[in-house]
Amino acid sequence: MLREARQGPLILTMRNIKLTIEYDGKNYAGWQVQHKKYRTLQQTLEKALKRILRKEIKIAGSGRTDSGVHAQAQVANFKTDSGIAIEKLRKALNAVLPDDISVIKTEEVGLDFHSRFSAKSKVYRYTILNRASRPAILRDTVYFFSYPLNLSLIQEEAKALLGRHNFRSFQAADKKERDATRIIKNIKITRDKDFIYIDMEADGFLYNMVRNIVGTLIEIGRGKLLEGSLKKILLARNRKLAGPTVPAKGLCLLEIKY
Amino acid sequence: MLREARQGPLILTMRNIKLTIEYDGKNYAGWQVQHKKYRTLQQTLEKALKRILRKEIKIAGSGRTDSGVHAQAQVANFKTDSGIAIEKLRKALNAVLPDDISVIKTEEVGLDFHSRFSAKSKVYRYTILNRASRPAILRDTVYFFSYPLNLSLIQEEAKALLGRHNFRSFQAADKKERDATRIIKNIKITRDKDFIYIDMEADGFLYNMVRNIVGTLIEIGRGKLLEGSLKKILLARNRKLAGPTVPAKGLCLLEIKY
Repeated sequence: MLREARQGPLILTMRNIKLTIEYDGKNYAGWQVQHKKYRTLQQTLEKALKRILRKEIKIAGSGRTDSGVHAQAQVANFKTDSGIAIEKLRKALNAVLPDDISVIKTEEVGLDFHSRFSAKSKVYRYTILNRASRPAILRDTVYFFSYPLNLSLIQEEAKALLGRHNFRSFQAADKKERDATRIIKNIKITRDKDFIYIDMEADGFLYNMVRNIVGTLIEIGRGKLLEGSLKKILLARNRKLAGPTVPAKGLCLLEIKY
Repeated sequence: MLREARQGPLILTMRNIKLTIEYDGKNYAGWQVQHKKYRTLQQTLEKALKRILRKEIKIAGSGRTDSGVHAQAQVANFKTDSGIAIEKLRKALNAVLPDDISVIKTEEVGLDFHSRFSAKSKVYRYTILNRASRPAILRDTVYFFSYPLNLSLIQEEAKALLGRHNFRSFQAADKKERDATRIIKNIKITRDKDFIYIDMEADGFLYNMVRNIVGTLIEIGRGKLLEGSLKKILLARNRKLAGPTVPAKGLCLLEIKY
């Protein structure tokens, strides 16, 4: 006598998984680029997820970081019906990913969470090594600047950036977002021995905005731009007035706040 | 009519030049090794000096650092009759040296100065990244240890090391210096977020001494060795009782005091 195998109900639950990711951006063409031939962080993470979950996975990042930019805590999320335990996923990812990417946290979040649209603010740090000799140990994570910088002047000038402004002057010349208005919520500029840290928290950043602001602050700090310049440049909404774009390697995405 | 060219007196002055050097030890077989086929820091610096001063130069380091060990401020000195300006020498060295070595200071010192024999003490730092996920950005300069560590127990145990002791128990098994007595002058153990820093200052260190002490402290901090073990191991003068040698990449020579 034949009987059908007894079968339980089919339960498929959609889960939303949030990844917090540290990476050394040196060997990547940024978080995501158009050209398929460059290796990106998003693509590398998706490949690792596919290997573990055996399905094509599309992840959404909190935002793109440029080629060479680092992250201490980039955030991305993806949806899956996989039942994999959340800690097992973190360990499996770190076993499979290259050594310049590490998943520092995996969390199950509500289905409405979106790493980009749910973000309240982002915190970036730019690190300058300000001494006579170039760096050896930290050569890939700091920007070396050998001329003396007037730190208190830089700190004073930066105050003009706080709050809601049109940051057109600090937007990459070749990228124009419709609305260049952003809110800078916090700026912290500190020196620890030869290192200068410029930390900025905003609701969002325009393309190259941190690097252009830092380039301008350096021009002021070394005396090439006059006191009061930052405010004038900000109000002018003209990229040509701002300082140069400092190198990507000094920039690190510190935190996404939700 | 022929006349001899008028010539001033010949003045040759011997100078003693002190170099303070930062390096990322990753790509070197240490400061100095016996085998010619490995690239060492000393050899790389001597080659750079030869290129600049156009003479064979022998430098004396404050001590050898192992393969993979870093330095924020290693010290070396050499004698020369070259008249090169001291700042020019620093710049020329940094122009010629590979990017993982940087000369952060050049100074003219008395002829009796010797980077090794004049040293009063040396300060080393060992850095542990103590969290669940491996490092990405600092993967070459920290030792990743994922199990929880009892920091206050480690701090308490380390007190037994302070002062003059025979450190035979923490000396590399294959190296035996006649006298294993050293004076540890300061120990500072701190945690900053996920990083644990173990700083030790001594009149000198035996081969692998810092790495063996740290390996033992970790065994105690994770509960594999009992409270009070460090003192017992120290008194036993037996390498077999101590913990494992932690990796070189977490170690950095911070300072030589004169």
